[in-house]
Amino acid sequence: MSLEKFSKEMLPAIESELKSQVARLDKPHTRPFYDMLTYHLGWTGEGANSQAGGKRLRPLIVLLVTAACEGQWENALPAACAIELVHNFSLVHDDIQDNSGTRRGRTTTWKKWGMPMAINVGDGLFVLSNQAIMDLKKDYPAETVIQAATILHGSSLDLTSGQFLDMSFEERDDLTVEDYWPMVAGKTAALLRASCHLGAILGGADENQCDAYRSFGHSVGIAFQVQDDILGIWGDEAITGKSAANDLLNGKKSLPVIHGINQSGDFAERWKKGNIKPDEVEGLAKLLATEGSYEYTHAISRQMTTLALNSLREADPQGEAGAVLMELANKLIYREQ
Amino acid sequence: MSLEKFSKEMLPAIESELKSQVARLDKPHTRPFYDMLTYHLGWTGEGANSQAGGKRLRPLIVLLVTAACEGQWENALPAACAIELVHNFSLVHDDIQDNSGTRRGRTTTWKKWGMPMAINVGDGLFVLSNQAIMDLKKDYPAETVIQAATILHGSSLDLTSGQFLDMSFEERDDLTVEDYWPMVAGKTAALLRASCHLGAILGGADENQCDAYRSFGHSVGIAFQVQDDILGIWGDEAITGKSAANDLLNGKKSLPVIHGINQSGDFAERWKKGNIKPDEVEGLAKLLATEGSYEYTHAISRQMTTLALNSLREADPQGEAGAVLMELANKLIYREQ
Repeated sequence: MSLEKFSKEMLPAIESELKSQVARLDKPHTRPFYDMLTYHLGWTGEGANSQAGGKRLRPLIVLLVTAACEGQWENALPAACAIELVHNFSLVHDDIQDNSGTRRGRTTTWKKWGMPMAINVGDGLFVLSNQAIMDLKKDYPAETVIQAATILHGSSLDLTSGQFLDMSFEERDDLTVEDYWPMVAGKTAALLRASCHLGAILGGADENQCDAYRSFGHSVGIAFQVQDDILGIWGDEAITGKSAANDLLNGKKSLPVIHGINQSGDFAERWKKGNIKPDEVEGLAKLLATEGSYEYTHAISRQMTTLALNSLREADPQGEAGAVLMELANKLIYREQ
Repeated sequence: MSLEKFSKEMLPAIESELKSQVARLDKPHTRPFYDMLTYHLGWTGEGANSQAGGKRLRPLIVLLVTAACEGQWENALPAACAIELVHNFSLVHDDIQDNSGTRRGRTTTWKKWGMPMAINVGDGLFVLSNQAIMDLKKDYPAETVIQAATILHGSSLDLTSGQFLDMSFEERDDLTVEDYWPMVAGKTAALLRASCHLGAILGGADENQCDAYRSFGHSVGIAFQVQDDILGIWGDEAITGKSAANDLLNGKKSLPVIHGINQSGDFAERWKKGNIKPDEVEGLAKLLATEGSYEYTHAISRQMTTLALNSLREADPQGEAGAVLMELANKLIYREQ
């Protein structure tokens, strides 16, 4: 069975569970509030369609890991949705913090309803994630529910720490590669690590297996972000659909840029002057590569990929879900968009 | 034993537990983020002192109820702090949403570090509240922890619903008294209700007692807000320390104002024109009273107070803590500031 076939089975189940979780807010008095959440989740309003809510990658990973541990993936649905709700809470707040007007091709929540309402939409999604994880109690002993909630909360705290670091980077010009890791570990890897960990716990994995799955999630998360950083500078615009040089134009302190700055060469000199213009971007991307940052970042990406796949092998995923998990990991890491 | 004596014992314990909960963020990389939270909580930065964090009313109520149920109040400390953290998360986000520059006489978090950082500070406090409640597992069975977390999350959802209603009221000119109740039930009463409910559960109360304590918290919350609304228009400036007519100047749709608007008299006519000036305030407050809104609001306040005290009697609080709880309720409801 392929990833596609698993997705066909799991994605509608995720969507249905998500809808029943969010329905907690579907009351006469708070209907417009509920509508804001369902808009963000891609179900209602302008541009609503099956892609508008994103790929539901994290909940899919939770369920695949549960299945690969030979657990009943349907029972893990509340945890899968809890992770997706945390992810979406962070997106709503991110969009305010980054002043982003569009997400997945649609107007962002704060652009549509204003900043104060959007803060509250994010808060609402976050509360719902806490309620969702508690629903595991239908199928798991209370101790397991507490264990799962503890994993969820830990990753949420890492997420806010990573968000703090990411925002504080904007003000700093003394960053080194060592500063990059805790930021990415929180901002990108925390939820993928938690997704794998939750899937393993709920699939009944033993402690060693749980550790291996958690490491897998962590490394996949880092590899995913490093690949994102590479595409943000050297990606093929025709494939990614966004200007390849976006990250340089936006002054984003991604891994290649931090590495480049620390080379103290011509790239660093230009970067310090700020305000990079569109016609400089191609030349600067080449310059950055010449100074070794492309090679460096690719080496890190390969290293993280190796770590991820080693951890996955150690976790010893079973059956078709195991094979599909391997397929998904490769797809995430070697993606070109 | 008096409220003062209980406070002397419980408040330092609350502060100490709060500090150990928030210490989860005290790591080298995230030290400045941690400092933002400790500033808001009143422990660090300009103006830090033992009053800067507020009265810690909600955690105090949790512990008093636990003690009044003849439970070990020390064991309930994680729940008491969880409630206080939810309260503070909502204050940080509120201050952004209301564009408030000062709180408890100090610069607000968003004024000090900017809106994006302050959103994240609120989010961090919220995550910590979820982690705090899970720490009940040290002294309670897993089922009780889940029950407590479920109460906490339910009240948090009510809080975001109340916040939505409060913000949406600003845009509406068709409000009736019926719209007011669900807003206040969420925005003010939810956390007091949860404080009492948690205290009862953790004190080992039976179901009827839990219901009575929950009702007590709800009614106290409503009575507290209604009293706040009265003081916001007819309070004695010399006692409250803020301009008594603050709510009229700010155009706040409090209970007396909503009632006044619905009388469709002279007050309503003037209100509709908006932009009330300081020299009009005294006359408008008198007009509002003449049209029956003072009497109406006071009657509601008395009614809620009676309900609260009846519920408390039904809950049958034991020992000195019980007497102190009664004292605290009276103090909250009959306060003049």
